[in-house]
Amino acid sequence: MTTRTRITRAPERQRTDRAELHGILDDALVAHVAIVRDGLPLVLPMGFGRGGDAIYLHGSTGSGIFRAMASGAPISVTVTHLDGLVYARSLFDSSMNYRSAVVFGVPTVVAAADKEEAMRVVSDHLMPGRWDEVRDMTKRELAATLVLRLSLAEASVKVRAHGASEAADDGDDRSIWAGVLPLRLAALAPETSALTPPGTAVSAAALAYAARLSR
Amino acid sequence: MTTRTRITRAPERQRTDRAELHGILDDALVAHVAIVRDGLPLVLPMGFGRGGDAIYLHGSTGSGIFRAMASGAPISVTVTHLDGLVYARSLFDSSMNYRSAVVFGVPTVVAAADKEEAMRVVSDHLMPGRWDEVRDMTKRELAATLVLRLSLAEASVKVRAHGASEAADDGDDRSIWAGVLPLRLAALAPETSALTPPGTAVSAAALAYAARLSR
Repeated sequence: MTTRTRITRAPERQRTDRAELHGILDDALVAHVAIVRDGLPLVLPMGFGRGGDAIYLHGSTGSGIFRAMASGAPISVTVTHLDGLVYARSLFDSSMNYRSAVVFGVPTVVAAADKEEAMRVVSDHLMPGRWDEVRDMTKRELAATLVLRLSLAEASVKVRAHGASEAADDGDDRSIWAGVLPLRLAALAPETSALTPPGTAVSAAALAYAARLSR
Repeated sequence: MTTRTRITRAPERQRTDRAELHGILDDALVAHVAIVRDGLPLVLPMGFGRGGDAIYLHGSTGSGIFRAMASGAPISVTVTHLDGLVYARSLFDSSMNYRSAVVFGVPTVVAAADKEEAMRVVSDHLMPGRWDEVRDMTKRELAATLVLRLSLAEASVKVRAHGASEAADDGDDRSIWAGVLPLRLAALAPETSALTPPGTAVSAAALAYAARLSR
């Protein structure tokens, strides 16, 4: 654990299990990536994938922020799952249940020879099973894609996963309900594109992903 | 529009309507807040509220990052809704539907006299209706809370909200399904705390919030 990864606010919520870090990343589709540009912070949402003890980000070779990240700029990547709203009997003790992971480091550019494999990691993360349903990426597509690898060596995980707490001064009125409203990402029915001929079966990959979210 | 808020990647996705910015913020519970610390980027998830043309962040007066933000540090605040996975007939043209807002600026500290009203904005945003169900915040609680205001003057909004696109070389195999798997945040059944006596009605505020998510 480093100075940056030691949690000082609510330290009892810190987790250090690597499997838990991997699980939080694997359950997420979007990461928020921060970079310093002209001395100022900038944070943008990006799809990502995890493979082993690293995450992979992909973007266009024409993207200014991707070129900056590829040139040795330090970044911070945060993934957050909001798991519930915690209604205590006072606003002060009300809270949220969440799982979050913050990763720090300098990403490296994935070499041309390893790019297709890294893109498979990203694809399998964002749209599991889809890689095998569609044609291979072309050389031109791979050439237009910048893939960055960020090690998970410096990462911290924070989790709140319990019911309402209260202080002694939260009042005598026990008729006020306290509890948790659990939240989760859910999939609705797939919407078929006009590109798809009528009667075509919905992608097994999309259906499997929807089922995974419903578990 | 400033250099920072003009979108250069996929500029057709930029939106400039203030009502759309407000709506994206109002639909979100968690923002990702980036700050530069020791020259390095740091991004953390935080609950927030929007009131008028500003957002409000609250934290403990004992929080290092809140003290840094209160001392004139520039921040970037990003809110993202992932609305769907877009399955094209190639990985390269696959995408995500999303609504995101990025705000830049230097937050100001909300003065003691205005703090309760600002906390009401945050409470009404995160747990609509709950303010009136519980006791008032105490002077001690307000004193322990640092509330920051960030103007929405410098903000950019990016939205993708359509079906699968494809390139000419996405292949002749039209039997491959293309479409969108819509995603949304959903509420599960409220979980009553052990603090609540049996038979107590679930908070109307929590039920109304669950209903809002189900709309």
